[in-house]
Amino acid sequence: MAGSSTITAPDWIAVDWGTSTLRVWALGREGEVLATAVSQEGMSGLAPADYEPVLMSHVRTWLPETAARSVPVIVCGMAGAKQGWKDAGYRQAPCAVFAGGEMTRIPTRDARLSVSILPGVCQMEPADVMRGEETQLAGLAATLGPVDATVCLPGTHSKWVRLEGGRIAGFRTFMTGELFSVIAGHSLLRHSIAPEGENAAAFAEAVEDMLADPAGLTGALFAIRASGLVGKADGAAARSRLSGLLIGAELAATRPQWDGKPVHVVGSGALIDAYASALETAGASPVREDAEALTLAGLKQARAAMLETQS
Amino acid sequence: MAGSSTITAPDWIAVDWGTSTLRVWALGREGEVLATAVSQEGMSGLAPADYEPVLMSHVRTWLPETAARSVPVIVCGMAGAKQGWKDAGYRQAPCAVFAGGEMTRIPTRDARLSVSILPGVCQMEPADVMRGEETQLAGLAATLGPVDATVCLPGTHSKWVRLEGGRIAGFRTFMTGELFSVIAGHSLLRHSIAPEGENAAAFAEAVEDMLADPAGLTGALFAIRASGLVGKADGAAARSRLSGLLIGAELAATRPQWDGKPVHVVGSGALIDAYASALETAGASPVREDAEALTLAGLKQARAAMLETQS
Repeated sequence: MAGSSTITAPDWIAVDWGTSTLRVWALGREGEVLATAVSQEGMSGLAPADYEPVLMSHVRTWLPETAARSVPVIVCGMAGAKQGWKDAGYRQAPCAVFAGGEMTRIPTRDARLSVSILPGVCQMEPADVMRGEETQLAGLAATLGPVDATVCLPGTHSKWVRLEGGRIAGFRTFMTGELFSVIAGHSLLRHSIAPEGENAAAFAEAVEDMLADPAGLTGALFAIRASGLVGKADGAAARSRLSGLLIGAELAATRPQWDGKPVHVVGSGALIDAYASALETAGASPVREDAEALTLAGLKQARAAMLETQS
Repeated sequence: MAGSSTITAPDWIAVDWGTSTLRVWALGREGEVLATAVSQEGMSGLAPADYEPVLMSHVRTWLPETAARSVPVIVCGMAGAKQGWKDAGYRQAPCAVFAGGEMTRIPTRDARLSVSILPGVCQMEPADVMRGEETQLAGLAATLGPVDATVCLPGTHSKWVRLEGGRIAGFRTFMTGELFSVIAGHSLLRHSIAPEGENAAAFAEAVEDMLADPAGLTGALFAIRASGLVGKADGAAARSRLSGLLIGAELAATRPQWDGKPVHVVGSGALIDAYASALETAGASPVREDAEALTLAGLKQARAAMLETQS
């Protein structure tokens, strides 16, 4: 947990409250970051009554001593899910990347907080949902302007989004990260896959295999186990191959979206590296975008919309 | 557990020792079944030292009182895996469905037993293994003769086998059953999938979706969850859809093997029904084959080969 420090009362507070991670920013009148806090107190470990105390533990020292003024707190992410702090609903795609005035107000015990949660985005056909990524898309669209673009947001549930004229035209979620976890952790392949380590050649070959044979995923998975039985076992190569097969399957399914076009890949660390590498293997042109920076940029859009509504 | 009963000492004993199930047959000189036993004492719950006592608990009353004659016991299945009773090795495909003389003898404490385990079959490129299915294939080939045929053996690890001139030309394993278990039990979809119940329309639609879009599996999985969030949740339909997507993915990957050809589907119960239904949805012609009967027929081939070697 990064420490929060005593600062002049912020103009407002931005919060990205995901399934496993909480990020908080104290912001000044010009949008400057006065302080930040990060913790692992994500939605998955919290009951509704936990949210205010957890938030207060990070922002208490930032707040004015009296409730003469309440500080706006704008929240995006899974805190707005049914099983989160409060259900903030969905906007339905196709829709603008960001629409002001649709936030859900949350009553708090401490009158110095004035909390609003952003809605997620849903799609009816094919059925899909996002919660948090729409804020990153708002941050990206603020930079790109009202253009057409393909955006890939890798993660536990990777999302591929088509922006048309700067709006969310449609999207599709792939269970890539979660399938990696359950297959590596709970299937027979757990005996074959090392807990860490990587092998770039095995990863690239797996991506190529899936692009060449998009239907072959469930057959290719067993071959990871069988390779270890009939040849030499290499746990790190098996780990990279599983990752490459799953990311490759995602690329095989989204080919029309990245073939011959730039793809904005929103992420950080090893995950954005893996997707950028897979896209390059496939002959596409990944453009790396910093997830945290885009989230904050998106929350700033929400703050600007809030001020516009109030003026 | 089906009880074993006192009988005249059998000519020999056939054993199918799989990952989760043990089946034992006492057989007379003409191949007639004198008695049977079934239990859930599969390989996954046993250490090497457990096998003889477990086997004895089922066959003790069948054995002669003295060790004047030892009774041949022929075992197929996962008992011959590295982590089983004893590693019985692999024959390498392409190969005959059955080859005598390659069984692994296992010393026993009780001199009335004379135990041999059949080898599995491996394939180097693409890497694959089977252990137990080769015995069912031997039983099937005994009926079909030296023909070309496509065989589907559904299960935790489904196998698709090409028989050419009655020989195993090649095969491929799909993690279909195991993926169903880990996704339904350990992923986010566990919230959407009912523990039982089925919906034939949802199953058929999922099979068709995968045949139309073979690359779409990992995207279609998340849509099961999202459907429940944006529409009405139907746990039984979600269960059938997951099953249909995974079996449909297997059919999409094996299309050249079943398109316009009969497929021998080896199994029993709900599993053979699901595969036959999926194949019919795909326009193929499933021919149902009883797994247990084929296993016993295959073990009889092994017994015949053993007698030939001895004579």
